[in-house]
Amino acid sequence: MIVKPADSKVFILYALIISLFILFLSGCEVRIEGDLGDTLPSWNDGVSKQTIINFVKEVADKNNPNFVDPADRVATFDNDGTLWAEKPLYFQIYFLLQQIKDQASKHPEWREQQPFKAVLEDDPETMKSFQVSDLLNLVLASHSGMSQEEFETTAHSFITTARHPDKNVLFTDLVYQPMLELLDYLRQNEFKVFIVSGGGIDFVRSFSEDIYGIPKENVIGTAIQTDFILEGDKSYLRRFPMIVPPIDDKQGKPVNLHRSIGRRPILAFGNSDGDIQMLQYTDDREGPALCLLLHHDDAVREWAYDQESKVGHLDKGLDEAKKRGWTVVSIKSDFKQVFP
Amino acid sequence: MIVKPADSKVFILYALIISLFILFLSGCEVRIEGDLGDTLPSWNDGVSKQTIINFVKEVADKNNPNFVDPADRVATFDNDGTLWAEKPLYFQIYFLLQQIKDQASKHPEWREQQPFKAVLEDDPETMKSFQVSDLLNLVLASHSGMSQEEFETTAHSFITTARHPDKNVLFTDLVYQPMLELLDYLRQNEFKVFIVSGGGIDFVRSFSEDIYGIPKENVIGTAIQTDFILEGDKSYLRRFPMIVPPIDDKQGKPVNLHRSIGRRPILAFGNSDGDIQMLQYTDDREGPALCLLLHHDDAVREWAYDQESKVGHLDKGLDEAKKRGWTVVSIKSDFKQVFP
Repeated sequence: MIVKPADSKVFILYALIISLFILFLSGCEVRIEGDLGDTLPSWNDGVSKQTIINFVKEVADKNNPNFVDPADRVATFDNDGTLWAEKPLYFQIYFLLQQIKDQASKHPEWREQQPFKAVLEDDPETMKSFQVSDLLNLVLASHSGMSQEEFETTAHSFITTARHPDKNVLFTDLVYQPMLELLDYLRQNEFKVFIVSGGGIDFVRSFSEDIYGIPKENVIGTAIQTDFILEGDKSYLRRFPMIVPPIDDKQGKPVNLHRSIGRRPILAFGNSDGDIQMLQYTDDREGPALCLLLHHDDAVREWAYDQESKVGHLDKGLDEAKKRGWTVVSIKSDFKQVFP
Repeated sequence: MIVKPADSKVFILYALIISLFILFLSGCEVRIEGDLGDTLPSWNDGVSKQTIINFVKEVADKNNPNFVDPADRVATFDNDGTLWAEKPLYFQIYFLLQQIKDQASKHPEWREQQPFKAVLEDDPETMKSFQVSDLLNLVLASHSGMSQEEFETTAHSFITTARHPDKNVLFTDLVYQPMLELLDYLRQNEFKVFIVSGGGIDFVRSFSEDIYGIPKENVIGTAIQTDFILEGDKSYLRRFPMIVPPIDDKQGKPVNLHRSIGRRPILAFGNSDGDIQMLQYTDDREGPALCLLLHHDDAVREWAYDQESKVGHLDKGLDEAKKRGWTVVSIKSDFKQVFP
C-alpha cells in the first residue's frame, strides 16, 4: 500500500491520539525528565548538590561500577532538624506539654508533683532545668494508658492544627523544601526512603505520609511498649508506660534501623551528634555510600546553633564529617529556599 | 475528513504499533487480565478462592463501599506452615542444629552440657523431650556473638544448599505454590505484603526476597538484640544473646507488626494457634478485613496434623474461625497443586 504525504501526516496524528489514549487507559505514567537544572530546584548549584546528584546517578546506572540494586537503595533521614525545623524546641515537646495539660484533670496529683507542676503552671525557669529523665517521665505519663488508635488520633489532631510559638504557621509548614525535593528525587530513582528519628515513632507517623509522602511502615523512632488486649470480642493494643529499648538516638539508630529494614542504608542524612552512628554504619557498608549532615548556619532564614554544645546538636559531627569525608550541607549557602 | 474503511484499519494498526513502541520505551508493564479462571490458577474453584477474589476486588474498587486506600492495604502472612511447610520440624531447627555442630569446636563444654550434648550426639530421644527453653538456649548460644552480616551470610548459605530430611529437595522447594500466587495477586492489587513469623527475623530475611519476593524490610519476626560496635574506623552490629521482647508469636504478633507497620492489616493469613491474635487484631479493625487459616488436612500431598495439640498447631484456631467467620483454607480441597 502506498501512503500519500497528506495521508501519512493524518495517520501519525491519529496514531498519536490513539496512542495517548491507550497510554491513558493503561494507567502508565510517562516521565519526561529535563536537564540537571530541573533537579533539586531549591538547592543552589554547588558541591553539595553536585555530590548528591552524582551519587544518585552512579548507583542508579547499571553500567556504572557503583551501581546498587534497587532492593539495596535504602536512604535514611533523621527528622528533627533534618527534614523539618527543631527550634526553639523539638516540636514534639509542644505536643507533650499540651498532652499533660489536657490530661491534668484526670491526675490531680500532678499539681504538686514535678516535672508536671512546672508544665501546668507554665513555669519556664523550672522547665529550662529539665533533664532527659524529666522529659521521659512526661512522655511515659502522657503517651501511655490509651489504645494505639486513640493516641494516633490525638497526635494527628495536634499536628494538623497546632502552630509554632514564634512563627505564625503550622509546625508542618516548617519542613525544608530542599529536603522534600531530595526525598522525591530519591524515590524517582527507586530509593526506599525511611525516617530514623529520636522522636516518638507514633508521633512521627501521624504526619509522615501527609508531609513527606513517607508511609508509616517506613518510619523508625523511639517506641513505647504496647500490650495486646482482648476485651470481650474486641482487640486492641494498649500503650504501656515503658520505652522499647534502645531509644532511637546515637547507638540506638543503627540498631533500630537494622531491625526494621534488615540492611545498611546506602545514604544517610542527619544534623546532630545523635546521627553520627547512623552515618558511620552507612559509611562502613560494603559498596558505595553517601553520608550527609545538615549544618544550621542561617540565623536569618532559619536558626544558627551548631556551636552550642547541647544534647542533639552538632558538635562532634563536624569533626567526624571532616575525618570521613562526609558532605556537610549548609542551609545558608546550599538552600536556595528554606521553607515551602 | 472522511476516513475510508480500508484506511481506518491501517490507522488502527499504526496506532497500535506506535502505542506498543511508546509503552516499550516508557518501561510500562502492560497487564492483560483474563477472566477469573486465570486468577490463582493453583487454587481449586470454591468458597475459599471466591472469598479471596471477592475481597480483593472490593477493596481495590473505588466505587465499592468496601474500598480501602492502597496505603492501608496491608496483608500479613505467617511463614512456617502458611507460606512453606513446617514438617517434620520447623525448618529453622535444622539450621539451628547445624549451627550448634559447626560451632562445637569453639565450645568444648557443650560435649557435656544439655541441650547441646543431645544435638552433638544426634540423640533423638533426648531431643524429643526438649522444652521451649532448651530451644531458646540453643538459639541464643548459636545465633549470637557474631556480626549481623556474618550471621546473614551463614543463614543464606544454609538455606540455598540444605535439603529436607525426608523429601529429597531444598527446603525452599517446599513453599506452597498457591500461596506464591496469592502473594503476587495481592501485590498486583497494590497490597503491601508482610511476613509476621515466630521464626528468627534474620533467618527469614535470608530467603524472603528470593523465594517470596518479599523485601527484608517487610519481614517481622523474633529478633535477637544487637549492639552497635565501633572498632577503630569500622562499625558493625554484634549479635547479643538476648531476645528482643516480645517473641513474635501469639500476643507478640500484633505488638510487633504494629511497631513495624504502624497500622492494622486488612488481610491476615496464618495456620496455627500462634496466629489467632494477629487474626483477631486484623478482624477488629474499622473497615473490611479478611482473616484466613490454612488447614493442614492432606496427609498424601503434604502433612495432616490439625488434631495434634502441640505448640504451634491448630487447636483453638478452628473454633475461633467458626465463631468469627474466618475462612479456613483446606490444603486437601482448595489447593489444586501444593508445591511448585
